[in-house]
Amino acid sequence: MECLPGFREFYPEPLPLKDAWSCDARNHLFAAWRHTARAYGFREYDGPPLEPLELYTAKSGAEIVGQLFNFVDKGDRAVAMRPEMTPTVARMIAASERAYKKPIKWFSLPQLFRYEKQQKGRLREHFQLNCDIFGEPDVSADAEIVALLIDVLRRLGLDSSDFVIRLSSRQAWQRFHESRGGDPAKAYEFYQVIDKIEREKPEVTAEKLAALGIAMADVQEFIRAGEPTPELRAVLDNLAARGLREYVAIDYNVIRGLAYYTGIVFEAFDRKGEFRAIAGGGRYDQLVALLSRGRVDIPALGFGMGDVVLLELLKARGKLPASDSGLDSVVIIEDESLRPESLALVQRLREAGRLVDYSLTPAKGDKQLKRALELGARYSHRVERDAGGAVVYRTRHLASRCELVGDLASALATSDPAR
Amino acid sequence: MECLPGFREFYPEPLPLKDAWSCDARNHLFAAWRHTARAYGFREYDGPPLEPLELYTAKSGAEIVGQLFNFVDKGDRAVAMRPEMTPTVARMIAASERAYKKPIKWFSLPQLFRYEKQQKGRLREHFQLNCDIFGEPDVSADAEIVALLIDVLRRLGLDSSDFVIRLSSRQAWQRFHESRGGDPAKAYEFYQVIDKIEREKPEVTAEKLAALGIAMADVQEFIRAGEPTPELRAVLDNLAARGLREYVAIDYNVIRGLAYYTGIVFEAFDRKGEFRAIAGGGRYDQLVALLSRGRVDIPALGFGMGDVVLLELLKARGKLPASDSGLDSVVIIEDESLRPESLALVQRLREAGRLVDYSLTPAKGDKQLKRALELGARYSHRVERDAGGAVVYRTRHLASRCELVGDLASALATSDPAR
Repeated sequence: MECLPGFREFYPEPLPLKDAWSCDARNHLFAAWRHTARAYGFREYDGPPLEPLELYTAKSGAEIVGQLFNFVDKGDRAVAMRPEMTPTVARMIAASERAYKKPIKWFSLPQLFRYEKQQKGRLREHFQLNCDIFGEPDVSADAEIVALLIDVLRRLGLDSSDFVIRLSSRQAWQRFHESRGGDPAKAYEFYQVIDKIEREKPEVTAEKLAALGIAMADVQEFIRAGEPTPELRAVLDNLAARGLREYVAIDYNVIRGLAYYTGIVFEAFDRKGEFRAIAGGGRYDQLVALLSRGRVDIPALGFGMGDVVLLELLKARGKLPASDSGLDSVVIIEDESLRPESLALVQRLREAGRLVDYSLTPAKGDKQLKRALELGARYSHRVERDAGGAVVYRTRHLASRCELVGDLASALATSDPAR
Repeated sequence: MECLPGFREFYPEPLPLKDAWSCDARNHLFAAWRHTARAYGFREYDGPPLEPLELYTAKSGAEIVGQLFNFVDKGDRAVAMRPEMTPTVARMIAASERAYKKPIKWFSLPQLFRYEKQQKGRLREHFQLNCDIFGEPDVSADAEIVALLIDVLRRLGLDSSDFVIRLSSRQAWQRFHESRGGDPAKAYEFYQVIDKIEREKPEVTAEKLAALGIAMADVQEFIRAGEPTPELRAVLDNLAARGLREYVAIDYNVIRGLAYYTGIVFEAFDRKGEFRAIAGGGRYDQLVALLSRGRVDIPALGFGMGDVVLLELLKARGKLPASDSGLDSVVIIEDESLRPESLALVQRLREAGRLVDYSLTPAKGDKQLKRALELGARYSHRVERDAGGAVVYRTRHLASRCELVGDLASALATSDPAR
């Protein structure tokens, strides 16, 4: 009854097992993802983890089924665990876009599932930040989505020495292909060759290109020149105005494998080239119309960023925060006759927003203090009786060992509010 | 390609469709769940949404399969989408408990799946707050978990006029059954009769009890008397010390249907009795040993609280917060020649932690201001040129219409930090 291969369990820190996944680190990502998307005015949505199989075959053809967790449910429906979020959000947009002011800026943090061939470190689920803008054809939206991608990574402590966004354009390649007399019906086949150009042997690429009537040297020169299209130029200027120019580079090696991209496309990579792509996206103006069978035609663009490569990169660059229980206070109970008053203090501190722990059962004061220090609590509190028998509260700032003795109100006032 | 029956899509507010589910309301729940669990020193974990089928049949027998989304995956494994979190967390605890100080206090917010018979309003997935304590046999842990349950509901704006925790005890019923000469082998059968006592016709219950050699009047008197066991008395005293006594009542009608409970059990209900149980839980000291085949024996207790009944209750009691985009500022761009400076301001505000929006494309100033007001932003900013041609920043507090004109630093200082 072990965990299924390719699935993860997330443990609280300190991690109990070698190679265990940290729920704290995952939540650190989620918090940065949510904060930055919200800072950009994006609103959160969510959809079902289980969907009709047809939602995926309609867009990607029947061959995708081999990579899905799909089955027939007890109501004889062909269903699949979602491998990506775009079809779901396209359906939600098609159903609701008339009710929202444009542009619609949405994000989500779904867990996604693919039945990948089993390899070391190859997972079958991951979490992904999905950010999309619907209803804005202007290139200012492309700049906004790229800026958001940059700021998500900056929020996590990465800078321009750590990562770069490689900007490209489906249109640039389309015009290239047309201007060289390429067969429009074979444009997607040509894009697929470009998509593999960095991973494939040059002679293999040259052969494939020749079969399409395109010269390898011509393609190489086009990539080398890296002349931005007017749309890409506008994105570069827009990002420069924000002070983000150093995070992007024109790179026509990028074209994105998926068929549905129509405009600017981009991928985020670590500068050292040690990892797979951190994120990728682009403009897909015709997808909502395709998935809604022409009922709703709305321009769209967005990106997806998975948790797995990103966690690896943050770990390698030392950018994951140290384990922290987040505790504000520990209430130490030495005199069991004062447990009711101590419980009342625990309650009041928690009601005041503090993160508070205490020993459920009798234990030595020293041991309780040691535990408070291990947990990284900032304050300890003790309920005591003064010489006259009145209940008083002793609050200690653990780092400085400063102590203050006073009434309940003073105990609440002395300790800072929750971080 | 509609959403599957019994599955939900969560939309950002304002809701676009009648009866749409609100992602904002769901996130409001999640925030209250997370905050309160963390305030109690609980740490977050997560597990796989897909598990070996055997994980559930081992605990609940083969009959549970009819209620599962189960299938055979491409590696010939019998798998199921998780219907509950307890088997997963029990496995994680069995694998890791030696590495953690006791008691281990953990929480999780999983989405769970059941293939329920299709009925109006009957869902096939829901989110659930799961809070558990491992490694503490003392009743102080039972009090802590009940206090947490109370404070989760209080955090959402509910008070003792809205809900009550009905406390009961498997041990109390066990002693009752034994003292009346009941067959120990039929104890669980007896508990099942008690579990249905409020929904079943009295004559049917009486007949079932008679078959077990128990008198209906005897059971009714035991429930009516509601005499707390010493353990329940300790929980009541503990909660009283925290000022939470009014939120609980002894009620032996509660016994919980699941076989694995061993001690105090409880359920949370709305006072008016309009809804199904809001939450339920109890002590299950033998489950980890059962699921780990005796490898790890550790006491355990916890509760689960679903999102569906809770959202209905909060809606009915007017406790869901009004829709709010959360935006701090809108940057209004009237003079397109100042768009670069405006983008720079947007960027600086976002870097300072503010939630900021602006018009991606040229639009009239009035229209942009109207949109800022619709979004509930607190500040508007405009970049302007003064008489000498220098760039200045005009910040307006939208509620008071107070304005201040100054440099970039003043614009950042004027608007409050993000909520």
